[in-house]
Amino acid sequence: MDAVYANAVWVVLAAAMVLFMEGGFSLLEAGFVRTKNAVNVTMKIFVDLTVGALAFWAVGFGLMFGKDASGLIGTTLFGHPEQIRLSIDLPGAAYVLFQIGFAVACISIVSGAVAERMTFKAYMLTAAMICIIVYPVTGHWIWNEGGWLAKLGMKDFAGSAAIHAVGGWAAFAIAKRLGPRIGRFNSDGSVNVFAPSNVPLASAGAFILWFGWFAFNAGSTLNVENPALASIALNTMLAGAAGGAAALFLTMFKFGKADPSMAINGVLAGLVAITAGCAYVSEWGAVAIGLVSGVIVIYATLLVDWMKVDDPVGAVAVHGFNGVFGTVAVGLFDRQHGLLTAGDVSLLLVQLLGAAVVVVWGLLGGTLMAIVCEKTIGLRAGEREEEEGLDMSYHGIPAYNELERFADMPSSLYNFEEITGIVVAPAKTGKSKIKA
Amino acid sequence: MDAVYANAVWVVLAAAMVLFMEGGFSLLEAGFVRTKNAVNVTMKIFVDLTVGALAFWAVGFGLMFGKDASGLIGTTLFGHPEQIRLSIDLPGAAYVLFQIGFAVACISIVSGAVAERMTFKAYMLTAAMICIIVYPVTGHWIWNEGGWLAKLGMKDFAGSAAIHAVGGWAAFAIAKRLGPRIGRFNSDGSVNVFAPSNVPLASAGAFILWFGWFAFNAGSTLNVENPALASIALNTMLAGAAGGAAALFLTMFKFGKADPSMAINGVLAGLVAITAGCAYVSEWGAVAIGLVSGVIVIYATLLVDWMKVDDPVGAVAVHGFNGVFGTVAVGLFDRQHGLLTAGDVSLLLVQLLGAAVVVVWGLLGGTLMAIVCEKTIGLRAGEREEEEGLDMSYHGIPAYNELERFADMPSSLYNFEEITGIVVAPAKTGKSKIKA
Amino acid sequence: MDAVYANAVWVVLAAAMVLFMEGGFSLLEAGFVRTKNAVNVTMKIFVDLTVGALAFWAVGFGLMFGKDASGLIGTTLFGHPEQIRLSIDLPGAAYVLFQIGFAVACISIVSGAVAERMTFKAYMLTAAMICIIVYPVTGHWIWNEGGWLAKLGMKDFAGSAAIHAVGGWAAFAIAKRLGPRIGRFNSDGSVNVFAPSNVPLASAGAFILWFGWFAFNAGSTLNVENPALASIALNTMLAGAAGGAAALFLTMFKFGKADPSMAINGVLAGLVAITAGCAYVSEWGAVAIGLVSGVIVIYATLLVDWMKVDDPVGAVAVHGFNGVFGTVAVGLFDRQHGLLTAGDVSLLLVQLLGAAVVVVWGLLGGTLMAIVCEKTIGLRAGEREEEEGLDMSYHGIPAYNELERFADMPSSLYNFEEITGIVVAPAKTGKSKIKA
Repeated sequence: MDAVYANAVWVVLAAAMVLFMEGGFSLLEAGFVRTKNAVNVTMKIFVDLTVGALAFWAVGFGLMFGKDASGLIGTTLFGHPEQIRLSIDLPGAAYVLFQIGFAVACISIVSGAVAERMTFKAYMLTAAMICIIVYPVTGHWIWNEGGWLAKLGMKDFAGSAAIHAVGGWAAFAIAKRLGPRIGRFNSDGSVNVFAPSNVPLASAGAFILWFGWFAFNAGSTLNVENPALASIALNTMLAGAAGGAAALFLTMFKFGKADPSMAINGVLAGLVAITAGCAYVSEWGAVAIGLVSGVIVIYATLLVDWMKVDDPVGAVAVHGFNGVFGTVAVGLFDRQHGLLTAGDVSLLLVQLLGAAVVVVWGLLGGTLMAIVCEKTIGLRAGEREEEEGLDMSYHGIPAYNELERFADMPSSLYNFEEITGIVVAPAKTGKSKIKA
Repeated sequence: MDAVYANAVWVVLAAAMVLFMEGGFSLLEAGFVRTKNAVNVTMKIFVDLTVGALAFWAVGFGLMFGKDASGLIGTTLFGHPEQIRLSIDLPGAAYVLFQIGFAVACISIVSGAVAERMTFKAYMLTAAMICIIVYPVTGHWIWNEGGWLAKLGMKDFAGSAAIHAVGGWAAFAIAKRLGPRIGRFNSDGSVNVFAPSNVPLASAGAFILWFGWFAFNAGSTLNVENPALASIALNTMLAGAAGGAAALFLTMFKFGKADPSMAINGVLAGLVAITAGCAYVSEWGAVAIGLVSGVIVIYATLLVDWMKVDDPVGAVAVHGFNGVFGTVAVGLFDRQHGLLTAGDVSLLLVQLLGAAVVVVWGLLGGTLMAIVCEKTIGLRAGEREEEEGLDMSYHGIPAYNELERFADMPSSLYNFEEITGIVVAPAKTGKSKIKA
Repeated sequence: MDAVYANAVWVVLAAAMVLFMEGGFSLLEAGFVRTKNAVNVTMKIFVDLTVGALAFWAVGFGLMFGKDASGLIGTTLFGHPEQIRLSIDLPGAAYVLFQIGFAVACISIVSGAVAERMTFKAYMLTAAMICIIVYPVTGHWIWNEGGWLAKLGMKDFAGSAAIHAVGGWAAFAIAKRLGPRIGRFNSDGSVNVFAPSNVPLASAGAFILWFGWFAFNAGSTLNVENPALASIALNTMLAGAAGGAAALFLTMFKFGKADPSMAINGVLAGLVAITAGCAYVSEWGAVAIGLVSGVIVIYATLLVDWMKVDDPVGAVAVHGFNGVFGTVAVGLFDRQHGLLTAGDVSLLLVQLLGAAVVVVWGLLGGTLMAIVCEKTIGLRAGEREEEEGLDMSYHGIPAYNELERFADMPSSLYNFEEITGIVVAPAKTGKSKIKA
């Protein structure tokens, strides 16, 4: 059997698992935010998978992976990304599908940090802009053979920089521009905690994300004959476990409680941090990276709060900070050229440069996108919309309706006659169309 | 390595993913129905995976894939489906497992439309009848080499017709015969909306379904050396994304709200519609099919309501209407023989015939199954059972018991002595056995 | 393409699916326990995947799969399990990852039975001890080439004995030593039912477990060229379906209700029972094993209650009893050497011996671990902690916060200044830092 067939199956399965991570983001965020915004965060993930995926497929992919111009941008493949010619033995369609999964993940990182106070339309526009321009540009620099960071020798196997750091820092910029949720910060500098609305659901999201991460990282081989494939997957496991363990112990020792949000984000931090280096570091390197990431995520969360930037799910701490750390960690732990493993400093410098570039680009992109929204359709939800909750404001429905209360669905939504103009029977007046 | 080994692994993994879609159906339906029926819809999915799976394995598979008699029905393999000899290089057991996943999916389509008012026993009987006879018959016609529709050249790669349209129209017939839920329609023709009880859960179901659909469609290659495999998966993604995007925009523009049910059903509509053509159409064809399906699903929902047929989850609009549309769309978009792509009309006519046949068969089969239930064990839940909710009526337990209220579980269920007759200690009278 | 590459992909994917089963355990248990302990059971699964996984990787793997000493224990590979040399063509890292999934599953079995009254720290210690010593010892005996049970010819393909029975009986011993939850048993011998808090969530857990089980069993081939691979997967399906069907019908006929807990546990019982024999029995053998397991699980549940051992999720009935039954069933249904299939008694005797050994070892290990906890950090939660619920006691947060009530989160957890010592602004006194 030719390797191309095995590669196609492998990458298609990996892509399906990476795309399934969107379900993980959705549950994680729906569980972490307040009940009144749980539908909205879920719907934003649907925006990622529909509007975002189509935008990346039609335009972003070409900018990212098309023929390079000056190391800066791709110029071909628009509308027909599957025509890409790869140096490895893999059908273009499989590659495109896998990369759609990555682009969509990058948006979903943003969705958490801007939760509970951004208008739905601004989010739709932002999702499209991320997929069309923000993510593809640095993605091109790092992953296109002709990209200038790639040519410098930057190593980012599955995207600690290209996906997580870009998404995390764009999220930071938009969250900062949006301002905090009403009531989040007190004038004395203290923080009001909004409790996660549904911890089991958030945990389910984390488990799905972890499951998908094996494909995120090992699938990035794109090639079953890559001898590092299994070791990549094992490193992914070890770093996630170490990140979670570190965060769990740290919260227990410092605060006396095993905080679920921090334990979950510790796992995700480890997974983010190993994403760049999973193919380059040893098992013990993966454990070390994971342990450090689990500490970083907690202090980064506090730091973001201290900066008065409101990130309801900790996306900046998880993806922004640990995306950077993971990128830099390759320079420390790379088996051949790491500072700690081989005493080599040149790779570390390239990684530091690459990390700095994606942070700046993420912040810049995030800020510009927020400004575009402000100048056009508006960025921040109205105060009344926010107080009521974005679920009722934008989607006309509460997340949980267990008490069977329901009042605001427009009856026209389900009224065939009103929409089509075909009158079936004269509607009687004074009759409630909605069951109270 | 021989291809048979790769095929076995591929189809087993695909089958696992397709069977996991049952979890998706379960969560989707549990989230869409009212709280008081959430356990019941979940248990019905367990019926599909247990009673239904065994019935199809023992009997239905032989009718569908056994040696053909007159183009109408299979006649062998009963009780030993794994002994099938396939023209492709694949172990019979892998094929059987994958086909069990398809049969079970066909029942689960029905489960949603009949939710909230069918007796549990009638559902068990219906699930068995679908797996034993209704699904296998048209399945044989379309997918058995000797089937009369197959011989006419009908193309239904992964079952828009054979699975979704049959299931959707059988669901329509049973839902019609069952009648609407109490209070669903007003005498003036207006519709009372019963709000989904748990939107995040319903969304989780949709994400699982989408994940499984990659295997549903690409797994239908049954053969890793099928060069279209990756393109099938990409088409699946694009059509789902386009269906969701179309439904999302349409609901926003027409109703002013981004309705979650419609967005979710838009994605599922795109996935259903591409199922027949995923191996035959181009990427842009997939996008076009998805966009149309997202419009269809909304108007079809309104149409079903207008016909006063009560379909609590929109299964008819998603699977029935878009199963038909997807089947016909092959005749429009097929790369070699589509009307729009090649100006060819003959394939379209075959597809139209095939679609008409499955609609008629689905309606007929659904009606007959409903009548069988009515004449034997009864079809519709009693009024009191329905008002109380099927969860307490048939399962003795509410879906969510967060307030720790619980009163109706029969204590005998957990009383060892009462069941086995082994008396351990004399039970004292007047003692509550249930914690209030 | 060399088989080693295909094997690496296969085992990595299977390992990811097995590790995803942890999400299944988490949801299953969070749904089965009372709301006030749903966070705690979820966090325990994170302990399994972090502390447990690292402990097994660093130490337990060597004891289990290292060079054998006297048939009793492994003596190499500590800290570097990926250096294992396998007789099959598979990278060590893939094997290690898969085995981590198994070890973690063994702990998670225990987590359910001890739910709602064990301290979190005792669980952490127990998880470590299971992964470091309890699971690896009998695992070595059964699965290491040099193990004494392996040399006797014991057949346990994917671990009915090595994983499920050991975990189930250790769980029984710890649950017995812990004592029942407050109010569980009345003095007259009757049982108070604590209703599952979230049935749809528990069901979602079961679907994830079923999905993962295909990889659990078929992945145990470790080799895509194993001709039984597809048949293993089909047997897994059939036994799960038969177990669920048997439990469903039995509860309906005996108690008049289709009890969800019993139906779910029936499916799991079938899956546990087929785990040992999936590669050795025929399809009808799998159905028979499943049917019996579905009956066993119900009577075993009653028996455990009758013994006044409190197992909130039925883990002993599912994994303990059916782990034993599945082990013995190989001796009955093995195609070549089963008593019922070939009239051979010698394999049955070996299986009976093996089953007895793991029961004794599980009980012994469980009891010793409980004693270690008692003597050091304490085993059982305080009465007030238990009454309040372990979620607030150990994690400072309720599972569901839908009404936005939240009062007990320590504000310091999110207070940057207090932890780092960096004073930003003088905190004003008398200001609530927590939103009521």
